[in-house]
Amino acid sequence: MSETTTLLNHRYGPDHTPSVVDNPIIDHLLNHRSLRSYADRPLPPGTLETLVAAAQSAATSSNLQAWSVIEVRDPDRRARLARLANNQAHIVQAPLFLVWLADFSRAQRIADAQDIELKAPGYFDSLLVGSIDAALAAQNAVVAAEALGLGTVYIGALRNDLQAVIDELQLPPLVYPVFGLCVGYPATQTAIKPRLPQAVTVHRDTYQVDAQREPGLIAEYAALAASFSRGQGQNSLDWRDQVIARLKDESTLHGRERIAGTLNAQLLALR
Amino acid sequence: MSETTTLLNHRYGPDHTPSVVDNPIIDHLLNHRSLRSYADRPLPPGTLETLVAAAQSAATSSNLQAWSVIEVRDPDRRARLARLANNQAHIVQAPLFLVWLADFSRAQRIADAQDIELKAPGYFDSLLVGSIDAALAAQNAVVAAEALGLGTVYIGALRNDLQAVIDELQLPPLVYPVFGLCVGYPATQTAIKPRLPQAVTVHRDTYQVDAQREPGLIAEYAALAASFSRGQGQNSLDWRDQVIARLKDESTLHGRERIAGTLNAQLLALR
Repeated sequence: MSETTTLLNHRYGPDHTPSVVDNPIIDHLLNHRSLRSYADRPLPPGTLETLVAAAQSAATSSNLQAWSVIEVRDPDRRARLARLANNQAHIVQAPLFLVWLADFSRAQRIADAQDIELKAPGYFDSLLVGSIDAALAAQNAVVAAEALGLGTVYIGALRNDLQAVIDELQLPPLVYPVFGLCVGYPATQTAIKPRLPQAVTVHRDTYQVDAQREPGLIAEYAALAASFSRGQGQNSLDWRDQVIARLKDESTLHGRERIAGTLNAQLLALR
Repeated sequence: MSETTTLLNHRYGPDHTPSVVDNPIIDHLLNHRSLRSYADRPLPPGTLETLVAAAQSAATSSNLQAWSVIEVRDPDRRARLARLANNQAHIVQAPLFLVWLADFSRAQRIADAQDIELKAPGYFDSLLVGSIDAALAAQNAVVAAEALGLGTVYIGALRNDLQAVIDELQLPPLVYPVFGLCVGYPATQTAIKPRLPQAVTVHRDTYQVDAQREPGLIAEYAALAASFSRGQGQNSLDWRDQVIARLKDESTLHGRERIAGTLNAQLLALR
């Protein structure tokens, strides 16, 4: 069995393996797994510069480059951020911890030189522009990190208490933390997590759901995901029930139900 | 001069070239350029499946997989979408055109089987979760496409008339189009676009701006970007003035000033 086929079997299960083009960079992408346990091992010199160069090479809307990144080194600050993000120990353990920011403050500083107040950053679309710019950049950094033998995990829980994180990082108006990212060498082996069959995720021409077929495909995925979780010694709650539990009501948002107000206080997403 | 150094010189200019780790996947990422002119040449079999497999291998918040993608094949639909997106001809020309969706509709269909109405998708944070999920996935697809010798360009202008695009793609509630993506072989050579120096983009521990140093670094970047644009036969408006022109007021949002209302009508970002 080829390397590619092995990777696809892990990702989709043997019944839903698509035919993909054989290519080492594709294999590299298929091989992604998130890492939550980091070795106490220093990173190669130039790691941060490499990840940022990869990140800056990603596309950016209208070349605005409406993002920035903070490397958090101070251990006390790391510990406080970990407490704000659901006590995730890897925020403290990982040798590199980055916070990716949507940033229109730099644009405003440029405009300040001409005594111009920018109006567009307060609009909803600009929040999307900055968040998407940050996400494209960070994903390139993730692909780069894995090329160096490093693992990563995104920290969306950095939005649980958005105001406290903004204060901790001393973010000015027009800036908000989109997510964190831990980077380091693996302390443990991790496995490739299964995903939904492509037939569930891909639509043709319009959004068409095959109401006869979709529930069965999702049930097959739930079985595959449960088998994976058991193999990892994790809880094997049915994936469908996990989705419902995560999205049922505001209690599962862990504070994120308040972020609209915090973003508005940063002068973002006002209208 | 090594390949890596050449790529970095194009990206940052010779005065701000960082030291990065030498690695073929890093070089691949550094080599990105957006492509707006596509050859009339069919794609290899399995291209879509390959890009989607790469996309699904990206991280996704809480494994919700809160995104979907539509491949738009119908030429008439492509032409209508191009008209809605600032008449960008490559939307029609590219052999593959994808629309990336933030999608909580699938989760709601799963919950429907238990007669549960999900509350979290209406919250602001879920809009970010779905948009970020879609962006991470799409960026992996871009890296994969370039591995196959293909070029890409993101189409943020698909949000200019969001409601019309939602209607055209027949999107149900809890779904919105984050951006489009053109994919195909290059019809013309393109060049690596310069980006801001890393010193402007990277902060340490907190958001610190060196008010003495930043304006000069940005001015150096503006000169580099103007030189690049002249070399490409493009307008060489100062980058700082481009940023101001793009963000000055709502007229430059080209309809995107209305997206908050349209998202709300999709039952997204309500609070």
